[in-house]
Amino acid sequence: MEKLFELVKAQSPLVHNITNYVTVNDCANVILAVGGSPLMADDEEEVADIVSISKALYLNVGTLNRRTIESMKIAGKRANELGIPVILDPVGMGASRLRNESVNALLETIRFAVIKGNMTEIRAIDQNCRTKSGVDVENSDQITTETIGESIALAKKLANRYSSVVVITGAMDIVTDGERVRTITNGDPMMSKITGTGCMTGSLIGTFVAVDVDRAFDATTIAVSMMGLAGERAAAMARDRQEGTSSMKRYLIDQMILIDGQVWKVGAKIENRA
Amino acid sequence: MEKLFELVKAQSPLVHNITNYVTVNDCANVILAVGGSPLMADDEEEVADIVSISKALYLNVGTLNRRTIESMKIAGKRANELGIPVILDPVGMGASRLRNESVNALLETIRFAVIKGNMTEIRAIDQNCRTKSGVDVENSDQITTETIGESIALAKKLANRYSSVVVITGAMDIVTDGERVRTITNGDPMMSKITGTGCMTGSLIGTFVAVDVDRAFDATTIAVSMMGLAGERAAAMARDRQEGTSSMKRYLIDQMILIDGQVWKVGAKIENRA
Amino acid sequence: MEKLFELVKAQSPLVHNITNYVTVNDCANVILAVGGSPLMADDEEEVADIVSISKALYLNVGTLNRRTIESMKIAGKRANELGIPVILDPVGMGASRLRNESVNALLETIRFAVIKGNMTEIRAIDQNCRTKSGVDVENSDQITTETIGESIALAKKLANRYSSVVVITGAMDIVTDGERVRTITNGDPMMSKITGTGCMTGSLIGTFVAVDVDRAFDATTIAVSMMGLAGERAAAMARDRQEGTSSMKRYLIDQMILIDGQVWKVGAKIENRA
Repeated sequence: MEKLFELVKAQSPLVHNITNYVTVNDCANVILAVGGSPLMADDEEEVADIVSISKALYLNVGTLNRRTIESMKIAGKRANELGIPVILDPVGMGASRLRNESVNALLETIRFAVIKGNMTEIRAIDQNCRTKSGVDVENSDQITTETIGESIALAKKLANRYSSVVVITGAMDIVTDGERVRTITNGDPMMSKITGTGCMTGSLIGTFVAVDVDRAFDATTIAVSMMGLAGERAAAMARDRQEGTSSMKRYLIDQMILIDGQVWKVGAKIENRA
Repeated sequence: MEKLFELVKAQSPLVHNITNYVTVNDCANVILAVGGSPLMADDEEEVADIVSISKALYLNVGTLNRRTIESMKIAGKRANELGIPVILDPVGMGASRLRNESVNALLETIRFAVIKGNMTEIRAIDQNCRTKSGVDVENSDQITTETIGESIALAKKLANRYSSVVVITGAMDIVTDGERVRTITNGDPMMSKITGTGCMTGSLIGTFVAVDVDRAFDATTIAVSMMGLAGERAAAMARDRQEGTSSMKRYLIDQMILIDGQVWKVGAKIENRA
Repeated sequence: MEKLFELVKAQSPLVHNITNYVTVNDCANVILAVGGSPLMADDEEEVADIVSISKALYLNVGTLNRRTIESMKIAGKRANELGIPVILDPVGMGASRLRNESVNALLETIRFAVIKGNMTEIRAIDQNCRTKSGVDVENSDQITTETIGESIALAKKLANRYSSVVVITGAMDIVTDGERVRTITNGDPMMSKITGTGCMTGSLIGTFVAVDVDRAFDATTIAVSMMGLAGERAAAMARDRQEGTSSMKRYLIDQMILIDGQVWKVGAKIENRA
């Protein structure tokens, strides 16, 4: 699995991001740090061109508007035609009617290689319901040892419904392709005190899936555990030095170039489940 | 007053930001660091939904456009209907006809809990005039011991006109609810060498006002002095280490989680005025 | 030449940026660090007002859309009328039909004081061709000692065609006004692992050109070598400390206030060519 790290560095895949303006700089920087080449473009008239020269497409609805939703549809359809993997990040799903309708429309018209969200977002996709929590997970939706079985069942159901790898992020992350299931326990609570860890994870998934679309399950596992590993190392450094969240974020992005395949293999906490 | 720090951490209020794309990442990170939950959403079709689940709404016209100005109006009106406090940051007021017209339209249709600007912006609101200084304060508009009386009078006048808490930021900050007046002398000149201190202050005001809308005067005082205290500590660190402005900004955001109610109480330089 | 550093600090020129939302925060911060005053504004209805109070206009098509392309045209024309220098950054030129058409339209209607791009972008302007490399330079387009003569000839041709200073960035940068040519060898490969060095260079060019539009060739030389010098110092620091790219970026922006005219004069690696 760790050979995917070398593939990213060797191929430097172009990753097309249609994403929010809050964390877009961090997304570009983590793609670059692991060896990819980021491109952000969201105009309806150019996204078909841009995705055609890309190796993966990352769609994030964090600050969606009517213009960019149309662009996501156009880019996603073109990517599907060309066999380019598409990653969906349904940020804030449940928080507004527009988000629900837009994400549903994307799910109906585009085949996603990977769908990634926190439990609140994933549940909102499953039930097409409205939530109260904005873009952060609701407290009642934390994945715990009590709820892990139910959470895995939900992830598998959606993975089969959409023929996608599905990721539910949390203190324990779940990754499934509908059959195989892995849980990941890297990470640190301090990660929830900076914005962008979810979006950066999505961009990383795009970067790793880009180099071997047939191994989207492995590539996604790497990206999710890589973010958790970077986060736990960064949080430890910030705590040791009695620093705050901005220092932690700096260390986290630093880790993206410092963690190679070998370091990742030693540090990743991945468990194969039923 | 310092109990508001605990309230923010306990309630983790959702703060809806319609703000510029220059400093939006910093705004999200400071809201998270003090314990709030940021949400950035600016489409006309969803802002009414988003503000309905929020505890405060922060409107910043830094990179306004016709689409987002409409969204600000829709969100502001809905917030008023629901009793959710709205904060206005008239960035660059005076620099263009569009800014003047847009800010005036917002002031006419929405009741703001807090209006915050530098002296150039606040004067432009008062006189509906055009200025030459972009988004930074004009040199002739610095608040000094000579002009403080006049500045306070202006702030009080606008506070009464708009039934808002009014803040004029500067080397000495003024906060007034039209009757009570406080001046704050935290801060450091180096803060003017990074972008975002004004916007972050606005997002912080939203976060603190969110937990006790009836104490907007106190909440605003805390947010403004918190930013100044964080800035003076950060600037001292950067100078000690012979570092530049990016390091200073990192330390400033770090302080947002390191300064608690007790540290703030000791460090805040607040004076009650007439 | 180093006196331009003092002029920027003394005049604090207002620099109007219509630029992408990926690196806009970094652009604002480097303008502030060297002593300028950044303003980001992109609505069609206000850009003519904003550019009228500015000393330079920086146009960057990194995340162009139909709305902002119109704004660039309006602002550029107004700047030309007023004698305010305009800088063009054709980010990703070649990557889509929209970028090619938009950049060509800008080149036809606006006179640029400076045009800056990597070799892939500059070649795409020359040949109006489509490329495969997104916003990063294609490997085959690296400037080497073998290709330097050809690269200089291309830069001079375009400088004469558009009556502009033309910059081709790379491991070796080329700056020419069509007659005089300078090459710059400051910089570090690690700079290609963060996003924004190109955009920050463009904003710096705007800031230095703003204070003496008749010396655009010198001002551009300073800005380009300043970025390279900051980058090589920052990369050395990050490597010494075994840190990653986020730390490097922090050090790079820090250098913008730490490097003054004297430090620059000692560190700049500039060669006058034919």
